[in-house]
Amino acid sequence: MNELFLKELKDKFGITFRNLSYLEEAFTHSSYVNEHRDCHIQDNERIEFLGDAVLELTVSRYLFDHYPDLPEGKLTRLRATIVCEASLSQFAKEYGFDTYIRLGRGEERMNGRNRPALLCDLFESFIGALYLDQGIEAVLDFLRQTIFPKIATGAFSHVMDHKTNLQEWLQQNGEIVIEYNLLDEVGPAHEKEFIVEVSAEGKVLGKGQGKTKKAAEQAAAENALFIIKTK
Amino acid sequence: MNELFLKELKDKFGITFRNLSYLEEAFTHSSYVNEHRDCHIQDNERIEFLGDAVLELTVSRYLFDHYPDLPEGKLTRLRATIVCEASLSQFAKEYGFDTYIRLGRGEERMNGRNRPALLCDLFESFIGALYLDQGIEAVLDFLRQTIFPKIATGAFSHVMDHKTNLQEWLQQNGEIVIEYNLLDEVGPAHEKEFIVEVSAEGKVLGKGQGKTKKAAEQAAAENALFIIKTK
Repeated sequence: MNELFLKELKDKFGITFRNLSYLEEAFTHSSYVNEHRDCHIQDNERIEFLGDAVLELTVSRYLFDHYPDLPEGKLTRLRATIVCEASLSQFAKEYGFDTYIRLGRGEERMNGRNRPALLCDLFESFIGALYLDQGIEAVLDFLRQTIFPKIATGAFSHVMDHKTNLQEWLQQNGEIVIEYNLLDEVGPAHEKEFIVEVSAEGKVLGKGQGKTKKAAEQAAAENALFIIKTK
Repeated sequence: MNELFLKELKDKFGITFRNLSYLEEAFTHSSYVNEHRDCHIQDNERIEFLGDAVLELTVSRYLFDHYPDLPEGKLTRLRATIVCEASLSQFAKEYGFDTYIRLGRGEERMNGRNRPALLCDLFESFIGALYLDQGIEAVLDFLRQTIFPKIATGAFSHVMDHKTNLQEWLQQNGEIVIEYNLLDEVGPAHEKEFIVEVSAEGKVLGKGQGKTKKAAEQAAAENALFIIKTK
């Protein structure tokens, strides 16, 4: 395995593999195996099968614990936005995994190193390798440094409708009128931001800012929910 | 929670819940919650979301470890046959879970207690509750007493084509002619069993028995693979 990559894993994430063969398997694409049939190398498809399930569980547990009020349908939607090709391929690139995967020449020529499906599988394979080498706690530790903070800062929250969540929360014991008021527009015309305040029964509950009025309202609702629940 | 059920869990599976509220949540259908809105009870949908992911991982790990030669595609098919509505609803009935779920009157009237989707969710909820109460090891312990033996004895193996697997294994280094020969037919006419022998290049590799010739051939191929791999 590439020494530079091993150093990166250690420096960036504190990860040192005990059994490097797991890592090698995770970073070996089937196209590479097909071109080296005599070497009896294993491609990353089996380890990806496992990594996918590890990721589903670890992310599910995080969401279950951190969103105690989200119903199952919303948890499922949020999980699907995190554990999906678009997100995982982006993570693989962000953490530099794409540099180190072994590809066949054909796949390399076809720009496989930038193919989302391949990168998504690679990320899942890495998770599978880490799980086999060091167990689920090590995976959780890696995710706490990478994906969980993104979830916490709302990188996937576009699928969560905070306005609906706030409404459901406030109306648990009957109808309540919720109002969103535009307080201000800031910034130059081409980069305008809107500031919105949300209130119910004359009481201000939260404020939010966004590039559109709708985004600002969502942010205000999220802010209100945060304030209500941490009171 | 029903005392009889708690006793059953202890006697049959050695399970004693520490926090009974998880178990109560797992055995509460949304239809029951809808009819008891004032009681602020939680239905089992969130805990089922978690249980589903726990089951995916535990079954994946079992298959990954026990079928080191199955490619990813076949592992995925096998897992899908185990973690699916048809199987999980059957387990829920087999372990008597259906008796203890709390349903609304409407759902009860519509025979919800026998509805596969509802029973499948119930089984996943139970897994989720056990995981929350005692961690993944306790779930593995439960599965070792219930589902894993079924997998080991081939209850789901109809999706695994042992004949193809044997062929792929034997032909790794070129074409080999594989022959299946009917050795015997045993038992009375209405319960006939076929005995088949599989051989390649004049060498007998394994034997199998089954209710049809096809089933006996599959069993022979499975037997041959087992012998080859444990040599």
